[in-house]
Amino acid sequence: MKYSNRITEMQESPIRKLVPYSLQAKKNGKTVYHLNIGQPDITTPKQMLDVFRNISLDVIAYGPSQGLESYREALPRYYASRGISVNPEDILITTSGSEALLFSLIAICDPGDEVIIPQPYYTNMNGFAKMANVTIVPIMTNIEDGFSLPAPHAFEELITERTKAIYICNPNNPTGAVYSQTQLSALADIVNKYDLYLVADEVYREFVYDGNKHVSILQFKYISQKAIVVDSISKRYSACGSRIGAFVSKNQELLNHVLKMAQARLCPPTLEQMSAEAALSIDDSYFTNVTHEYGKRRDIVYDSLQNIPGVLCRKPPGAFYIMAQLPVANAEDFAIYLLKDFSYNNKTVMLAPGEGFYHTEGAGRNEVRIAYVLNSESMTDAMDILRQGLEKYQLENKL
Amino acid sequence: MKYSNRITEMQESPIRKLVPYSLQAKKNGKTVYHLNIGQPDITTPKQMLDVFRNISLDVIAYGPSQGLESYREALPRYYASRGISVNPEDILITTSGSEALLFSLIAICDPGDEVIIPQPYYTNMNGFAKMANVTIVPIMTNIEDGFSLPAPHAFEELITERTKAIYICNPNNPTGAVYSQTQLSALADIVNKYDLYLVADEVYREFVYDGNKHVSILQFKYISQKAIVVDSISKRYSACGSRIGAFVSKNQELLNHVLKMAQARLCPPTLEQMSAEAALSIDDSYFTNVTHEYGKRRDIVYDSLQNIPGVLCRKPPGAFYIMAQLPVANAEDFAIYLLKDFSYNNKTVMLAPGEGFYHTEGAGRNEVRIAYVLNSESMTDAMDILRQGLEKYQLENKL
Repeated sequence: MKYSNRITEMQESPIRKLVPYSLQAKKNGKTVYHLNIGQPDITTPKQMLDVFRNISLDVIAYGPSQGLESYREALPRYYASRGISVNPEDILITTSGSEALLFSLIAICDPGDEVIIPQPYYTNMNGFAKMANVTIVPIMTNIEDGFSLPAPHAFEELITERTKAIYICNPNNPTGAVYSQTQLSALADIVNKYDLYLVADEVYREFVYDGNKHVSILQFKYISQKAIVVDSISKRYSACGSRIGAFVSKNQELLNHVLKMAQARLCPPTLEQMSAEAALSIDDSYFTNVTHEYGKRRDIVYDSLQNIPGVLCRKPPGAFYIMAQLPVANAEDFAIYLLKDFSYNNKTVMLAPGEGFYHTEGAGRNEVRIAYVLNSESMTDAMDILRQGLEKYQLENKL
Repeated sequence: MKYSNRITEMQESPIRKLVPYSLQAKKNGKTVYHLNIGQPDITTPKQMLDVFRNISLDVIAYGPSQGLESYREALPRYYASRGISVNPEDILITTSGSEALLFSLIAICDPGDEVIIPQPYYTNMNGFAKMANVTIVPIMTNIEDGFSLPAPHAFEELITERTKAIYICNPNNPTGAVYSQTQLSALADIVNKYDLYLVADEVYREFVYDGNKHVSILQFKYISQKAIVVDSISKRYSACGSRIGAFVSKNQELLNHVLKMAQARLCPPTLEQMSAEAALSIDDSYFTNVTHEYGKRRDIVYDSLQNIPGVLCRKPPGAFYIMAQLPVANAEDFAIYLLKDFSYNNKTVMLAPGEGFYHTEGAGRNEVRIAYVLNSESMTDAMDILRQGLEKYQLENKL
């Protein structure tokens, strides 16, 4: 049978590519520390789980296409607490941040249109772009300077007639970079000058360390018609399986267009929205604790990496990922080695090869992404195993 | 700001277009019987709700992209009970039937490619086709013969180099038609001859009356690589807000391609899948009862319509919709009249204008779709109100 070109060209998720090796490792009795995916171990708040435990409805019915009214009405208070001023009508609830990303691409791009994205970037953007026949134009960021945003002229050089938007992820997955007011302001100026959209995936908004403060693109009022925020409760409340996200913009005409797609797919999961609404009553001390916990883990990972000869990385100020350059030729080969040919006390670690996060062929080949989503003790153990694995790999490969 | 052509060309859902009128009617104190949407009043099975009530997990985590393993492993027994032989690896769990429809279009069509669909058809197909830049080529079916499938040559005349698939919905939304073994066999021959896909939305599989039997396209083994079934638990278990569907096919290469899209969006809602799995243990007497109940309602609606002068309809053998031709020039005007200018004992009904289900300009203008999703008493009352409203409308408009 024949398949479409767009689906044939779509790559398998590089993060999930090593799964068969980890399954085999577990079958062989090894314990595998999963540093490869952003599935936090933090418990989902009891308030959210209690909504399910206490449901009294008789029918799990459709909700409105733009999301439950009560949830949309409650959300602006949460955003206000983060310095973001929005109204219920600026918010369309989506089935996860993924859907919001896909909706944004389809609403602002026709097939063949281009979006500029700093690389390394969230690897699933490749899938959404292929689904929507949108071309991703990457712009390089570098491990040496903590993957900070390129200078404005570097963006401007990439803008063509087909460019429709700049996409950023802030705090950044996979790099952990957090963009400053000044950097974001420069981006806002560019989209303003060239009449582009600025789309920001801000799902890691809460995870910012060392007293840094997250700045939302919605805070730049002069680009209010051009700014789209992609949001999700997955990481915020450790509720990845809920699949509740949001498409947020002050551009009402855009939202009316996006609503048409939302109507076609009817609605996001009803009970999960009720559960997400309950999360809004959670005290901010919840985030203080969670962020403190992630900060502690980050320090463990960063300090451990600093003590491994030949490893290069910067301390990431946000999200719960760190990109590290390893003293190996090919980090994917090394990640496979760890799963297949190595163990220490019958344990090993699973890493996400960095190359999958880059668009440019060959870039990031000696980098890995480490998600610090395990408790401190496990992270300490995992980093020790990584160090030992690396030593042994170097010896065996005469590096 | 500029928006994409595809989103600008996308129509608002015609079913939801009248919502402002119904909201106003309710504000004015009128009771509105909703015959316009397929939201059943049947209670969701207790077994499904109990899964939520009894959750013991601490983290609502990501599930596998292809769906929970235990759910996929349990599903083949359900399908076998419906005469459909599939294995777990033939099933990819989707976030509702909507997602399965979108996935199918993207996987088999590139922008500009065509799919043939008998009209009237499920109106949201227009939205998915626009999102995927696919052209819908409609083929007319007629109220006089109960919207039965056109003759094979009528399909063949529409096939071009760009035709990639024939889409059907069986039992049909909005017509209630159920296609026979012979009719489906003719379609199977066509897709076989022209190397096309046959995609069947079979979400109303259980709702077949008068001793009729539903035939799945998966039962035609010689087109096993060409057959895709779109499924959903929304109607089957009255769990529309769960958003759990499935993409089912024996074509493993196709499923591998679709999995790439599934991986990009990570997973369907986790708890809702656990709940859907619990539904599989429900005794078949559940369906006997539910189908009996819908059958009773259908008879009420059909008999009532037969007694209104000038109304044309056939008794639908499946789903829970009936298309009726009314003695009015424009059924949308009449539907608005019912909400805006009419009431009987302070009650009125909301209908779905038929035109929205047709692709051909002007077709179905005097038709409505009635969803018989309310209990017998309400349906009887609603049909009485419809009759009175029609009489008054005809008088006032001198029809």
